[in-house]
Amino acid sequence: MIPAAARLGEVSISLIREIQALATPLCINLGLGEPNLEPDKWLRDLAATVARDNSWHYSTNAGSFELRRTIADQEAPLYDPLKEICITAGTEEALYAVFQAYVGPGDDVLVPDPGFLSYPALTRLAGATPVPYALDPDGWDVDLAALEASWTPKTKAIVVNSPSNPTGGVLSEESVRRIAAFAEERKALVISDEVYREIHFGHSPPSFMGRGGNVVVVSGLSKSHGMTGLRIGWALAPERLMKPILTAHQYIATCASVFSQDLANLVLADGEANQAWLEGVRGKFSEQREVAIRTARQALGVEVAEPKGSFYLFVPIPACNSIELAKALVLDAAVLTIPGAAFGKKGEGFLRVSYAAEPDLIRRGIERIGEHLGRV
Amino acid sequence: MIPAAARLGEVSISLIREIQALATPLCINLGLGEPNLEPDKWLRDLAATVARDNSWHYSTNAGSFELRRTIADQEAPLYDPLKEICITAGTEEALYAVFQAYVGPGDDVLVPDPGFLSYPALTRLAGATPVPYALDPDGWDVDLAALEASWTPKTKAIVVNSPSNPTGGVLSEESVRRIAAFAEERKALVISDEVYREIHFGHSPPSFMGRGGNVVVVSGLSKSHGMTGLRIGWALAPERLMKPILTAHQYIATCASVFSQDLANLVLADGEANQAWLEGVRGKFSEQREVAIRTARQALGVEVAEPKGSFYLFVPIPACNSIELAKALVLDAAVLTIPGAAFGKKGEGFLRVSYAAEPDLIRRGIERIGEHLGRV
Repeated sequence: MIPAAARLGEVSISLIREIQALATPLCINLGLGEPNLEPDKWLRDLAATVARDNSWHYSTNAGSFELRRTIADQEAPLYDPLKEICITAGTEEALYAVFQAYVGPGDDVLVPDPGFLSYPALTRLAGATPVPYALDPDGWDVDLAALEASWTPKTKAIVVNSPSNPTGGVLSEESVRRIAAFAEERKALVISDEVYREIHFGHSPPSFMGRGGNVVVVSGLSKSHGMTGLRIGWALAPERLMKPILTAHQYIATCASVFSQDLANLVLADGEANQAWLEGVRGKFSEQREVAIRTARQALGVEVAEPKGSFYLFVPIPACNSIELAKALVLDAAVLTIPGAAFGKKGEGFLRVSYAAEPDLIRRGIERIGEHLGRV
Repeated sequence: MIPAAARLGEVSISLIREIQALATPLCINLGLGEPNLEPDKWLRDLAATVARDNSWHYSTNAGSFELRRTIADQEAPLYDPLKEICITAGTEEALYAVFQAYVGPGDDVLVPDPGFLSYPALTRLAGATPVPYALDPDGWDVDLAALEASWTPKTKAIVVNSPSNPTGGVLSEESVRRIAAFAEERKALVISDEVYREIHFGHSPPSFMGRGGNVVVVSGLSKSHGMTGLRIGWALAPERLMKPILTAHQYIATCASVFSQDLANLVLADGEANQAWLEGVRGKFSEQREVAIRTARQALGVEVAEPKGSFYLFVPIPACNSIELAKALVLDAAVLTIPGAAFGKKGEGFLRVSYAAEPDLIRRGIERIGEHLGRV
């Protein structure tokens, strides 16, 4: 038996997988990490155009120049399309490449707690140690004092994620400014995952784009356009930070799929149609969010923080063991949620309920949770 | 300035890039690493079908089950589609994931010399040390004595590549059997890159598929179907080897593009049409190969080994410095080739001439090399 590399030793996905594996087809799935969106006629027609016309050859490693220019025009005007934008095979590959480019053995990486479970995994796969910093449970903004308290002399990077998976929280403008300044002062990298930024319920969440020379922003079309399977993401960074990211990306993936790149280019280039699509997406998630909040308050009798973005409700269940509860909910109540403990120590006592589902399923699913809690 | 991770320290692509950067649009490009193939009506129609009908949601991490089953049916009958096949974002990502899954600091990896330059780079990116083993220049098969001589107690894996980039050589059945047995005896992994396997000029090259419990085979559709930009590859491994590869793949890329996966499934599932396509590809490359060999013998007056697969001619240029020569050829003769030294110490004294180009360009390009050599 040939042993696996040590970097895999502490990385696993077994907790969520274990719970998902218990689910039967009758289970209501509120565990989803992808939007309940399907391509409309506009998107299907663009895909048909690409399938008919596009080249199947490699793009340059950093991605087609057309797409990079469109991203600069429509999404990231502060970045030079030639030198400061790299197209990746989804936002996950963007994160992976940034970690491999900058993080190594002996480094610490500050990760949000609760936070997306890829961040500690990517840290460990790069040979480094994740150090959690606690989010402020009152709205889930970053508590700068907690961030400073988690700081170690070995800290190489700070991961931020706004809007957040799993909390739905959004960083304030002041937090963004202060985190960027803190990183600059401490000479650490900021890795800002903004893949949920278009899914918000109020003003547009402040971005880390252009916040100084230490900041890398990653994003993509997976969540905003229901294109999770098409694997289009990007990394934005000042020129002097970009070269190692590009080197890593080249050996990881060569380039993103050119079909997906060309489709993304057409989607973003038609600014008006794209804004209409995004308004539709926000409208749909807004409705689903209302149903989720209202039902949670009625059926569970708990006060939930209203998410400002993404499509998750982070529901406090007093005195619960979230892993045992999530398992029992699948087995006894036929509803799939993700235990808060999967997202870090500060996630214990919560369930992540995805409202990327049709309203009727959200309502029935949360009611099943309430009935289960009433029975135990 | 935030320093890059140490793993990037010795990795660079600057040599080939430096030479490519000298090329003007008037340059004849015989430096290409991708086929001069374009999708025909069959492939375009399949792409249109996929664009109209396919889901844009994530596939499972290991890839859509339909594609895995088709690969098992058509390409890899010795592998269980459920547990022994992982679809990747191109063959490069398959290689990258295998290295990350099994290779770590302190390990040595045996890489062919001359050989594709990603192998030493992927070794270094995994924190390990590449140890070259010399190929037999008489036909470029693996010289088993040379392989054994390169063995170190720290050897974790042996990389093989047949048909080979850059030599066009193909391993014999005996070499394949003996390498697999050698790896089994020494408890090392075999990583077999078979992405050029469908491009051959005689019998089908023997594969490492099913050659024991230590073997991982990677391949894909990039070279055989001119789909370099669509990023479809796969890793095949016995079940007990697959789990770490799948874990790495999941954090690197989540899944391959589902458009590309669904297209690959339709391409491979229609066995008859696919065989006809592959016959056409072999016919086209066979013609281009003839032109390349004949012109090289006439214009350069050298005896070149006839490539048995892939689409490269590895041309000996007596007493040359291949890097200086390749630069001079771009600047003074307007023809782009890749210096043999880019592929390892044993590549010095050679130029890699790609015949993935139209016959007239191959002829004129090689004649320009001859004229240049006659002048110096």
